[in-house]
Amino acid sequence: MSLSLEPYKGTRDFYPADQFYQNYIFGVWKKVAESFGYLEYNASILEETALYKAKSGEEIVNEQTYTFTDRGGRDVTIRPEMTPTVARMVAQKRKELVFPLRWFSVPNLFRYERPQRGRLREHWQLNVDMFGVESAEADVEIVKVAYGIMKAFGASDEAFEIRINDRRLLNYLLHKHLQLDAEGAHKLSKLVDRMHKMKAEEFLASAREILGEKTKLLEEILYVKSLDELGEKVPQGEGVAELRRVFEALATAGIKNFVFDPTLVRGFDYYTGTVFEIFDTSPVNNRALFGGGRYDDLVGIFGVDKVPGVGFGMGDVTIRDFLETYKLLPEYRPPVDVYICHLEGFLEPAGALAGELRQAGVRVVEDLTARKVSAQVKTADREKIPFVLVVGEEEAKTQKFKLKNLAASQEQELDTAGLIKALKKTRE
Amino acid sequence: MSLSLEPYKGTRDFYPADQFYQNYIFGVWKKVAESFGYLEYNASILEETALYKAKSGEEIVNEQTYTFTDRGGRDVTIRPEMTPTVARMVAQKRKELVFPLRWFSVPNLFRYERPQRGRLREHWQLNVDMFGVESAEADVEIVKVAYGIMKAFGASDEAFEIRINDRRLLNYLLHKHLQLDAEGAHKLSKLVDRMHKMKAEEFLASAREILGEKTKLLEEILYVKSLDELGEKVPQGEGVAELRRVFEALATAGIKNFVFDPTLVRGFDYYTGTVFEIFDTSPVNNRALFGGGRYDDLVGIFGVDKVPGVGFGMGDVTIRDFLETYKLLPEYRPPVDVYICHLEGFLEPAGALAGELRQAGVRVVEDLTARKVSAQVKTADREKIPFVLVVGEEEAKTQKFKLKNLAASQEQELDTAGLIKALKKTRE
Repeated sequence: MSLSLEPYKGTRDFYPADQFYQNYIFGVWKKVAESFGYLEYNASILEETALYKAKSGEEIVNEQTYTFTDRGGRDVTIRPEMTPTVARMVAQKRKELVFPLRWFSVPNLFRYERPQRGRLREHWQLNVDMFGVESAEADVEIVKVAYGIMKAFGASDEAFEIRINDRRLLNYLLHKHLQLDAEGAHKLSKLVDRMHKMKAEEFLASAREILGEKTKLLEEILYVKSLDELGEKVPQGEGVAELRRVFEALATAGIKNFVFDPTLVRGFDYYTGTVFEIFDTSPVNNRALFGGGRYDDLVGIFGVDKVPGVGFGMGDVTIRDFLETYKLLPEYRPPVDVYICHLEGFLEPAGALAGELRQAGVRVVEDLTARKVSAQVKTADREKIPFVLVVGEEEAKTQKFKLKNLAASQEQELDTAGLIKALKKTRE
Repeated sequence: MSLSLEPYKGTRDFYPADQFYQNYIFGVWKKVAESFGYLEYNASILEETALYKAKSGEEIVNEQTYTFTDRGGRDVTIRPEMTPTVARMVAQKRKELVFPLRWFSVPNLFRYERPQRGRLREHWQLNVDMFGVESAEADVEIVKVAYGIMKAFGASDEAFEIRINDRRLLNYLLHKHLQLDAEGAHKLSKLVDRMHKMKAEEFLASAREILGEKTKLLEEILYVKSLDELGEKVPQGEGVAELRRVFEALATAGIKNFVFDPTLVRGFDYYTGTVFEIFDTSPVNNRALFGGGRYDDLVGIFGVDKVPGVGFGMGDVTIRDFLETYKLLPEYRPPVDVYICHLEGFLEPAGALAGELRQAGVRVVEDLTARKVSAQVKTADREKIPFVLVVGEEEAKTQKFKLKNLAASQEQELDTAGLIKALKKTRE
């Protein structure tokens, strides 16, 4: 029997050129999160299954998790999302932690589903969360972090749009405006969540099945384009005032590409206030890139006092696809500064030079083979390493080396100190 | 029912102060690996179980893996080590890849075992491997990377020792010198692997059960202290020449703390040549910290041409324990430069300043609360953020800010450009 060479279905191998892009994406995430003072945390990819049963949407727990029994009889799950874990961690040390917390993580997550474009079984996801601030200022900061990441990736304001709603408004609509019972409200919110994947008539027909005559009342709110247009239809205190504060603060911060979107639901049941989504505005690939919102009741499921939270998650698969489409990914370049070749018998002085350069922080590949110099240089070229030098009798004696830039076909003669300076400079 | 607040048994939560140390360790690993030109790769934590059945030691596959059947009926395993994965990846793209490959990764690995000091169910492990070079020069480079990491952590040459052996020598001992059959050879090598955890007499008694009269022949080789002492007992071509080259090259590179150790086995069955272990020499905690070796047949199990390989793995739990013991860990410091407080009504200009600083690459926490300034400053202090400043009426008007160093009780008045310069400087 021959062994499979493929990765497990729905997962990816990251060869160095792939990992280069992962590192680029993770690097931008981390840089922006840290620029807002967020601290990195992490946890195990395995959690007891009870954690997910307590809060995730039904579909996720029942059909999409990797759940199994360990050898000691414990029911465990490979995490499908990070929010339950971070809520657990906050609940656990709530008495020692200094609030507000600003935390981020880049966990990998698993869902059992049919792999398709943009949907894999395993993906990495930036999670950014603030705990301990109830006011809309926290929601604003979280949206600013999301916006800051898009800008740090080089996205123009025209390439994406921030759609914002408030769960309190949705709850008002379902329970008070439409006077639905729990089941009806659940059905309708799932329907609204899917509405942009349906034709308008199809959506309205399905809505009519739930609402009958009251469908008109739904349209009154769902189809407005601004808070002003919402006007008197919704009383104060149902999320409208908070939305207004969020919009004003974003405008003050110079952010222009946000809109009020009363149709925005976000799948998870645990949101309690502001919800938002970053939308790709490209006409050929119009879709949500990522999103988040406020969840003030989540930490409370652990039987401790409530801790307000707001945050978002951003997946690597979707954002990489977006960056490729908009040609925003950098060119691949290995994290290597110079490739040192040697003539026969000069491996030792080549190694001594490599050691000195490394001590000074230069990234050096030493060719260890006994091949001809031309073959050694060819390897450097194929590996896209920018500089090469060759150590032979003269170089070993004079300690002067010809540093060659392969792409530019230029070379300069330098001593060791000169090499260090020149090579470190090219990295800036 | 109340939910557990604990992580899954044998795994860890990494709160920001814990993750700081993980990031420090991962950062040193990455920096040294890249200084030798190694490129980062990664893969999924899930693999089909067949991959491990083909190569890992028996104990690992049968009793220590997290193995289960997915919802589609596939037999999958959470990786207990990275080497099978990297061998699979090399085999898969062997025709496109430019050899030699220098690769590293920092995967998390799972083993089902009773948690104890230094042994958890999940740990992270640096994996450094070179593929495509058969000669001892590759073995030397791999040992140099391992040594370089210990030095980059600040370990003195006295704190650790590099023990080196060659599997060919062990095989000669088992099969030719002692003339054991396969079963006897297997039993004896497992016994030698455990010998440093046993008393000398206990070891010899167990050896006698396998070897009888031939135990003396075992002692002849196992107890020598140098290659010279091994002398004529072993013919050339049984790993001795390779060991000599490795020792000479390490000495040339200025490495002194290595020894020949004919008792060194290393657990895995797949080693074929040089094996080495980094040993903690502390008398109270004498043990292997990590190790590796040459495995020339591993890629071949995929039914493709052989690709020689050599590498090592280094776990986070063990090395962190070592660094703690030798007081080599840095002091915790959050990756935040400044904490901006504001007087009532001045959240907006505080936010504008924060935005400008972030644009320039400064890491800024904005206090969003309406608390008194003294309470805001206290939060910064408890979070160990080095600098604070307060925005009030005068600062908003003059755009001059008093930057206060909390630990030193010093302050200086600066404009925005001056703040950026001062804050970025403190990071160097």
